[in-house]
Amino acid sequence: MENKESASIRLRHPSKYLGKKVVVVVGGGFAGLTAAKQFANRRDTYVILVDERNHHLFQPLLYQVATAGLNPADIAVPIRAQFSRTKNIEVHKVSVSEVDLEQKVVRLPYSEIEFDYVVLACGAQHSYFSNPEWEEHAPGLKSLEQATEIRRRILSAFEKAESELDANRQRAFLTFVVIGGGPTGVEMAGAISDISRTVLLHDFRRIDPSQAKVVLLEAGPRVLAAFSEDLSKQTMMDLHEIGVEVRTSARVTHIDKYCVQVGSEVISSRTKIWAAGVQASKMAFTQDIKRDRAGRIQVNKDLSIPDYPFAFVVGDMAACEMAPGKTVPGLAPAAIQQGRHVAKVILASIYQRQRPSFQYVDKGQMATIGKNRAVANTGTFKMTGYIAWLAWLFVHVFYMIGFKNRFSVMAQWGWSYIFSKRGTRLITEKGWKLKT
Amino acid sequence: MENKESASIRLRHPSKYLGKKVVVVVGGGFAGLTAAKQFANRRDTYVILVDERNHHLFQPLLYQVATAGLNPADIAVPIRAQFSRTKNIEVHKVSVSEVDLEQKVVRLPYSEIEFDYVVLACGAQHSYFSNPEWEEHAPGLKSLEQATEIRRRILSAFEKAESELDANRQRAFLTFVVIGGGPTGVEMAGAISDISRTVLLHDFRRIDPSQAKVVLLEAGPRVLAAFSEDLSKQTMMDLHEIGVEVRTSARVTHIDKYCVQVGSEVISSRTKIWAAGVQASKMAFTQDIKRDRAGRIQVNKDLSIPDYPFAFVVGDMAACEMAPGKTVPGLAPAAIQQGRHVAKVILASIYQRQRPSFQYVDKGQMATIGKNRAVANTGTFKMTGYIAWLAWLFVHVFYMIGFKNRFSVMAQWGWSYIFSKRGTRLITEKGWKLKT
Repeated sequence: MENKESASIRLRHPSKYLGKKVVVVVGGGFAGLTAAKQFANRRDTYVILVDERNHHLFQPLLYQVATAGLNPADIAVPIRAQFSRTKNIEVHKVSVSEVDLEQKVVRLPYSEIEFDYVVLACGAQHSYFSNPEWEEHAPGLKSLEQATEIRRRILSAFEKAESELDANRQRAFLTFVVIGGGPTGVEMAGAISDISRTVLLHDFRRIDPSQAKVVLLEAGPRVLAAFSEDLSKQTMMDLHEIGVEVRTSARVTHIDKYCVQVGSEVISSRTKIWAAGVQASKMAFTQDIKRDRAGRIQVNKDLSIPDYPFAFVVGDMAACEMAPGKTVPGLAPAAIQQGRHVAKVILASIYQRQRPSFQYVDKGQMATIGKNRAVANTGTFKMTGYIAWLAWLFVHVFYMIGFKNRFSVMAQWGWSYIFSKRGTRLITEKGWKLKT
Repeated sequence: MENKESASIRLRHPSKYLGKKVVVVVGGGFAGLTAAKQFANRRDTYVILVDERNHHLFQPLLYQVATAGLNPADIAVPIRAQFSRTKNIEVHKVSVSEVDLEQKVVRLPYSEIEFDYVVLACGAQHSYFSNPEWEEHAPGLKSLEQATEIRRRILSAFEKAESELDANRQRAFLTFVVIGGGPTGVEMAGAISDISRTVLLHDFRRIDPSQAKVVLLEAGPRVLAAFSEDLSKQTMMDLHEIGVEVRTSARVTHIDKYCVQVGSEVISSRTKIWAAGVQASKMAFTQDIKRDRAGRIQVNKDLSIPDYPFAFVVGDMAACEMAPGKTVPGLAPAAIQQGRHVAKVILASIYQRQRPSFQYVDKGQMATIGKNRAVANTGTFKMTGYIAWLAWLFVHVFYMIGFKNRFSVMAQWGWSYIFSKRGTRLITEKGWKLKT
């Protein structure tokens, strides 16, 4: 009988990639997956993609899982299924312990992988600044597990309000606070308001779900700060119209199980969602690596790490300057562009051609506000309302990976749109064992 | 600020059901949901349905969630959404602490509900006999949480095998043991074998998923013991053909993280699934109640508890004799029939008519064996192979609740059938918090 847990991969010199350059890609998000795909079926390279999860996640729609609109599987695809027909790419579901840039080795819990090139694409996660204890009470929205946890909390709050006779407690169960007025915060607030006013409307006997209060707190002077000022204003008006209370210049000073504090004001709320700070995912290096305040790794114009021309960082994990003092934003299109670019640089390096510099093509930004409304900003071109919502719909379905997911998402949206229902109103618990 | 957790429901004499008989239904499975529905929009009764979960689960397809074929939400519907338009039925998501048959009260953690009639329909759960420590290593399949846990284990086993160089450990990761040869066990074993030979076939580089070994252990002399003997034989042959190793008269004596023992034989396996013993869900009573060995409550011919003509037990929780020494089987059709019947008995009691006795109408049994095969047994009529599989398909889609689920299940099955893929190959972790 064995008694040692193990996931050993010894990838030193296996015969099947003799003579090929080994490219290790860490992370199967937009940037990493795109980078790996560029090498598909080439004879000069062998790619080893490592991710601690088995799925690529379409993050822009994660808020829909959190608000019972889509299934987790609708916005996720198994990473290895993307490479069924590409024999020079292998996928491992393991977490990386350390990257050693001198020895050109990625260390895993029980072994290591040697590389010729490494692409780091681990994305970003939430940051609670110096208040890690807030996480328990206000989950962020970056993974499927977090999305189903938020869904559980939102739906459970209505359930608990229904069974609660104390008016104050009932009000706290029916108050939802979203912290952070970026696209995720705006979309979450809009979707919660939507559910309470349509989907849940007739399902309770002791509460009126449409009386639920949704508060969106933004520390800065306006929501959607990355958008133009008039779109911010339009968004504020749209949110107000669908019943979301927006407060700008509202900096959160305390969060616990029962409330959120903004300065001296206490908002009683049993359901808080964190959509504020973001930081680059952590990654340990044997060497010292320069990072910015958000934990992002500073890269050269070719996306390589200074002094390590064979090591690259792409996506949300990279601080890539596109103009003095301005870095490429943490958006899916930017990650995809960087993923494509890094493959070009690696191939240029293999064939000793000149390395191209990364040029970010700004495709703009979008955010939905409840059902039927959105704002979009592409350069100087702006859209609002229903048209922007249709554009949002089209773009999101178009960029999803896999026919099945597109079909499934469209079918669910069509059904929700027509019947004002949500397909995944599931409260699943954390444990799976029998009660004793 | 509040500091006490509470879910108080004081349901003594609220005005809205003055003059109505209060029927409390505990459990929203097939039996409870059917019972509650019979009272919809009546003026003589007010129904309070209590369940610790927010969803009704279509249990016959749970194994498909566990084997990545269907989404959890495809086989679940929110219980309260079933009663949107029925104003005399309310739903509470709470767990029951105790039933007091003398005081006619159902006790909840923070309050209680008075009733005129009570219907107990809490179903069954797995039983590990006197080995509760086996659960950790061999989850059962009764809830969505268990199904996604089993899915996680099955898919993770292939992932770990891919990253494992030690041949013995790799084999243990690729060995799946299903314990119990009833319909669930047969369906699980068939589906795991299916996945490894089709869905996963091209997705790995270091292992060959089709070499996975699936072992089905049955303590009795034959699988599907509730079916006729020739159908058992056919099932054994079908299972053998799709690569499942079936062992009958194989009683498990030990289970741990690394293996299953059958007598002196040790089967190294990292993934075990429990589909053997079943016992009635636990429910505390103030009074002494007579139960059988499986924990089921013995009921009269009208489904009432002896000495308590206003209290009823239906579904898997009831031991209802249909012939001397033979009780109604724990099947969905039986639960639905009992749910319907109990409502008739309660109405008869309200209007002081004679109480009808429950007559079980045997609609037979079915089980699928991988893709394209099934066995079905209805009285003396038997079906096998493709025809039985089509019948199985039709019956299961037909009995699902909700147009949306039917549509979604059919769409997913169609897609899986054509492309030999599985739509929900998701490994989701147990925790949702940031790693620190």
